[in-house]
Amino acid sequence: MRVEVPLQSAYKLVNHGPTTLVTSAADGRANVMAAAWVCALDTDPPKVTAVISSDSFTRELVEKSREFAVNLPTVELAQATLQAGRSSGREGDKLARLGLKTAKAGKVGAPLVEGCVGWLECRLLDEPAMRERYDLLLAEVVAAWADDRVFVDGCWRFEGAPALRTLHHVAKGTFLASGERVEAGPDGKGVLRKPGVL
Amino acid sequence: MRVEVPLQSAYKLVNHGPTTLVTSAADGRANVMAAAWVCALDTDPPKVTAVISSDSFTRELVEKSREFAVNLPTVELAQATLQAGRSSGREGDKLARLGLKTAKAGKVGAPLVEGCVGWLECRLLDEPAMRERYDLLLAEVVAAWADDRVFVDGCWRFEGAPALRTLHHVAKGTFLASGERVEAGPDGKGVLRKPGVL
Repeated sequence: MRVEVPLQSAYKLVNHGPTTLVTSAADGRANVMAAAWVCALDTDPPKVTAVISSDSFTRELVEKSREFAVNLPTVELAQATLQAGRSSGREGDKLARLGLKTAKAGKVGAPLVEGCVGWLECRLLDEPAMRERYDLLLAEVVAAWADDRVFVDGCWRFEGAPALRTLHHVAKGTFLASGERVEAGPDGKGVLRKPGVL
Repeated sequence: MRVEVPLQSAYKLVNHGPTTLVTSAADGRANVMAAAWVCALDTDPPKVTAVISSDSFTRELVEKSREFAVNLPTVELAQATLQAGRSSGREGDKLARLGLKTAKAGKVGAPLVEGCVGWLECRLLDEPAMRERYDLLLAEVVAAWADDRVFVDGCWRFEGAPALRTLHHVAKGTFLASGERVEAGPDGKGVLRKPGVL
């Protein structure tokens, strides 16, 4: 179930570097794109950075609305995530084309993609020079949500639901799923814990 | 073996969102800190962003030298990575205290941490307002290296060497190892490939 995450814990949703789907909406049109270069910037108030190309339809919608949402797709959504990065929303409703269902966000106009496991609702910060020079968007997170089957007590716990693991883009349509937990052990090494044995 | 990565492929080292060790050096002193908020910013010339707190010793050294290196620790280095994030280099040589051996970088003064599997040598871009307002450093990658046991043909391939998998910080000393490969399949779902079966 999608439950609200306290804002001061929002950065924990993206701490582990997942690939994202960025959604946007303006003038009655909505869009989705894949973005691997989304990163936490601050904890309280939470902020993120996102690299969104100036020639993308998403960027056009974000510049108009000053808002976007970061959605965290799962292993099950790998194909849709790949396709979201390979076609433009200018060619028609990409969300529909990819078979992605959405829900209304709480505070922004951009929709939330169902089947994802984490969501950040974001409002653009007033840093136009960064967008112009680097396609780098800075934004404040104004609401955050997570699937409580895998985000428990402010921590990702994928071990009981491997199909809900997040994706981490490598290259050319290849992702790595988020893997086993590693607890920093007292012997100077990491202690690997396999899914299901925690 | 550590081999040079062509600059246009440097972004692929951090595409999947690994936690990093940031090294720095100035005035004959070197330091290391853990930084989860490091992200690709551009491909050619390659650039990265890194969030480095203004009160850290690393930040002091980076402001002086205008350089730093991003090192990608493995599961074996989980404990050192955790400790690197929990103490300050102002209290003495943190690299020695953590038992981390280093090698000379090719183009920057910051050292490269041995036992890591990827390295980006970085020169600060002239964006002081971002550092002052957000502790956000923008930098150009001037050299890149990877361990050729796990970075093959421009792609991470951890399946033969699970101990060399990268770390992804969740919270409170817990990391996720990079996991199985997921190929975006034609049936609309991701196809999981387990380590060793490729």
